[in-house]
Amino acid sequence: MTYCVAMRLSSGLVFASDSRTNAGVDHISTFRKLHVFQQDGDRTLVLQSAGNLATTQSIISLLLHRSKDAERPNLLNAPSLYDAATLVGETVREVIQRDSEAQQSGSTTDFSCNLLLGGQISGEEMRLFHIYPQGNFIEATRDTPYFQIGESKYGKPIIDRVLHYDTPLEQAMQCALISLDSTLRSNLSVGLPLDVMIYPRDSFSHARQYRITEDHPYFSAIRKGWGEGLVSIFTQLPPLQL
Amino acid sequence: MTYCVAMRLSSGLVFASDSRTNAGVDHISTFRKLHVFQQDGDRTLVLQSAGNLATTQSIISLLLHRSKDAERPNLLNAPSLYDAATLVGETVREVIQRDSEAQQSGSTTDFSCNLLLGGQISGEEMRLFHIYPQGNFIEATRDTPYFQIGESKYGKPIIDRVLHYDTPLEQAMQCALISLDSTLRSNLSVGLPLDVMIYPRDSFSHARQYRITEDHPYFSAIRKGWGEGLVSIFTQLPPLQL
Repeated sequence: MTYCVAMRLSSGLVFASDSRTNAGVDHISTFRKLHVFQQDGDRTLVLQSAGNLATTQSIISLLLHRSKDAERPNLLNAPSLYDAATLVGETVREVIQRDSEAQQSGSTTDFSCNLLLGGQISGEEMRLFHIYPQGNFIEATRDTPYFQIGESKYGKPIIDRVLHYDTPLEQAMQCALISLDSTLRSNLSVGLPLDVMIYPRDSFSHARQYRITEDHPYFSAIRKGWGEGLVSIFTQLPPLQL
Repeated sequence: MTYCVAMRLSSGLVFASDSRTNAGVDHISTFRKLHVFQQDGDRTLVLQSAGNLATTQSIISLLLHRSKDAERPNLLNAPSLYDAATLVGETVREVIQRDSEAQQSGSTTDFSCNLLLGGQISGEEMRLFHIYPQGNFIEATRDTPYFQIGESKYGKPIIDRVLHYDTPLEQAMQCALISLDSTLRSNLSVGLPLDVMIYPRDSFSHARQYRITEDHPYFSAIRKGWGEGLVSIFTQLPPLQL
């Protein structure tokens, strides 16, 4: 499984992904699930993926390969983020259709995947899309400023409690890290290292990308602070009175 | 959907269930999901249910009806909790098989359900079982002192952080209430009122049963205290440093 979260806030975008993939419990590996398509000063697009690893790797490979061919529509020349999401959706359909058609009859492999595409293209506002296995997509709004894909439930309550459209980027990243920590603790199929990125509005820069490993001092500090804080507010609750 | 949690701790048992059922978003109703089979001084058995409502209601009806017939094995004369769990498992198989066989061909209705059975029969220690749709079951242990059924993921992180085998019953109930609150906030298919019960070890009493509605003063107080506490520890986290 996987857990990815992306936020589209007034001052920028925040992305965080784990890196564990598993097929059963025997095949556990680390794969990057956060991919950046960058053209300095013009566009920054971030793609996060969850689902069948063969499908998502094929989609990323095709999108990367095609972005080198300026003659055809690709992520580096798409005129708008809506067009970029359409392009990703078409690639999703292409790969899933190709692999499903080749499937042996009777086999029930799930080839599906979900993707998050966020970023900014010059001349436009920042946008964030959730692209479904069917290739269609929805967009984050002021009311619903974040999307999750993969193993999303464990880490949802904390986001629902603290995240708003106007949350500053640093706080939003703290929230994403805690959301990931809750998921890591409750679900073995989500694992370190994490790939995270902060995109400040109108920066057209992918400079603020970080990889967080087991011994990352800040991640360790907020895991500890959050865990101890939870236990402390729990013990301070008013005594049970039913 | 539904969310039920049950804990088997050194000093007793704790049960908590929501009461919402839904078939799509149009048919939302309130049904009790916590059922007690009681014989003062001899046994207290608590059954919680999640899944197809027709299935779970049938199972409860059959178990209740049969418990009035002392001639045949039932929950009120089962010699041990293991036998009681076996009996419930057989009833699960009976109902699911009956309804599945009558299903029109091509229909894919999911008749399955999950049940939690906890309690104590005199002469035995307290025990807690999770009974699967297949009718087999697993038992809670000192290492894994709690089970959840239904929409369990939102409310799991808090339990994983604060619950231990030796947690006192009152604290364990606080933990269950917070786990339910997190689930209520993040998932519309889980709803108030809640049915909760504390069973102190060797009491053979079902006296500490409570129904918690929207305006329950203690539940409102810990919801507020927990929510404000979370925001306060969040704002006190060390500043982001990646």
